[in-house]
Amino acid sequence: MISLIKTSEFLCFGGRQIRYEHLSTATRTNMPVSVFLPPGANEKTPVLWYLSGLTCNDQNVVTKGGFQRVAAELGLIIVCPDTSPRGAGIEGEDDDWDFGTGAGFYLDATKERWAKNYLMETYITKELPTLLLPEIGATSAPQGIFGHSMGGHGALTLGLKDPDRYKSVSAFSPICAPSQVPWGRKAFAGYLQNQDEWTAYDANELVKSGKRCPDILIDQGAADSFLAEQLSPDVFVSTCSEAGQPVELRMHEGYDHSYFFIQTFMEDHLRHHAKFLAAAAL
Amino acid sequence: MISLIKTSEFLCFGGRQIRYEHLSTATRTNMPVSVFLPPGANEKTPVLWYLSGLTCNDQNVVTKGGFQRVAAELGLIIVCPDTSPRGAGIEGEDDDWDFGTGAGFYLDATKERWAKNYLMETYITKELPTLLLPEIGATSAPQGIFGHSMGGHGALTLGLKDPDRYKSVSAFSPICAPSQVPWGRKAFAGYLQNQDEWTAYDANELVKSGKRCPDILIDQGAADSFLAEQLSPDVFVSTCSEAGQPVELRMHEGYDHSYFFIQTFMEDHLRHHAKFLAAAAL
Repeated sequence: MISLIKTSEFLCFGGRQIRYEHLSTATRTNMPVSVFLPPGANEKTPVLWYLSGLTCNDQNVVTKGGFQRVAAELGLIIVCPDTSPRGAGIEGEDDDWDFGTGAGFYLDATKERWAKNYLMETYITKELPTLLLPEIGATSAPQGIFGHSMGGHGALTLGLKDPDRYKSVSAFSPICAPSQVPWGRKAFAGYLQNQDEWTAYDANELVKSGKRCPDILIDQGAADSFLAEQLSPDVFVSTCSEAGQPVELRMHEGYDHSYFFIQTFMEDHLRHHAKFLAAAAL
Repeated sequence: MISLIKTSEFLCFGGRQIRYEHLSTATRTNMPVSVFLPPGANEKTPVLWYLSGLTCNDQNVVTKGGFQRVAAELGLIIVCPDTSPRGAGIEGEDDDWDFGTGAGFYLDATKERWAKNYLMETYITKELPTLLLPEIGATSAPQGIFGHSMGGHGALTLGLKDPDRYKSVSAFSPICAPSQVPWGRKAFAGYLQNQDEWTAYDANELVKSGKRCPDILIDQGAADSFLAEQLSPDVFVSTCSEAGQPVELRMHEGYDHSYFFIQTFMEDHLRHHAKFLAAAAL
């Protein structure tokens, strides 16, 4: 019987900011996961998944994202998983900051060297919901998904692939077309055996192939140093526009890629999700 | 000519979160200082000093305190200094987490070993205002002071000693009577030559000796593991009550000593200061 061990709990804005650890069957490593339970959380309280970016773990958004105040007010559970296995013991796993540890890219690796541990899509969409949602009493709650950068890529791709599960989708500075940019190409070439597997992990390609999800909100800093080379929101919006996938892209003059940017627009994202999740609960 | 070097700047809630570094004449070390400038800051925008607690530097409250949203709304400049010299090269400076590096206690050391560098009162009240306020165009602005734990002690003592400068005072979980508790006794015995110097750095003793400051707001978590042994808010409130120093102590069930507690009540503190600082500006 695999179970979650609570490693910390803090009261915050009347809610509980909890951290768990568990031995994952998908990654074969110990995985932390952070959860915010708003005051009065019950089995109908919506669950919003937040996927973090490169080099982050579950704690970055918990300490720097500033979501607790608004999540407490709106009554949202926020679940923040880690971004990869850690300490899997794979040769080279710690060599790069944009591949391996801290850079799981929310995919299921198929290259033999990584495929025993780097099953982050399975972990996020199958193992963790099965394990965590009963623990926090949220098995029948509506779910949404959002994230930042690599985690924005994760939110868009998982949201597009499973609109029955994720009733709301948004992203901060997402990697929108990973097959076309250095971060994505490196990850896909490293984790996946064949190039025809790439499209299943590329939001831009998923929309082209007919996948649809609820109206997407994207916030993007115009002074983000990764914008030109890695993120491609313009390509994605153009694809969505042709395909009829609703998306709102908001460009913000002067803002960069940091959590100072994320915290500034966090409230707007939570209100976006709350609106869709309240409708889904009806 | 000593000057500030800007080491980073981020846009956040329309304001600018800036970090500077400078060579301090008081501490004879390089000191960082973080400053939040709200949108439209001008020479009349109030300046609120935030003093951090043991083990912290200037960045903890910047990343975890969640003040930027409200400071942007209310139009407050927030200045966050470091808590001690670092790398002064004094034997034993890094031996303890509650003494030496990260634990300057906002006093001017008189013991020879520390007195060349650990002049944090002079640094906070003389050197840094002279250097920083012209840089940010705030030389004629009203000033307030607050802080957490050791920094709450700093805010109370500096506020009580100079009500002409600090027009508003508040604290999260302050060390209220340091002469009576282990953290304070260790610091005072370590940094100060004679025990008769202690009262100048003890908020409880300062109120007893007739010092007064504007109405104090104190928030304290009832589940704070340091409350019983180190903080003494009850002693302080009793002293203030006898002396006629206005103080409001709010005890919060279930909250601890962390930034999850601080961020929960940050908005209340900023509104407290804004009220007094607006009145001071008239």
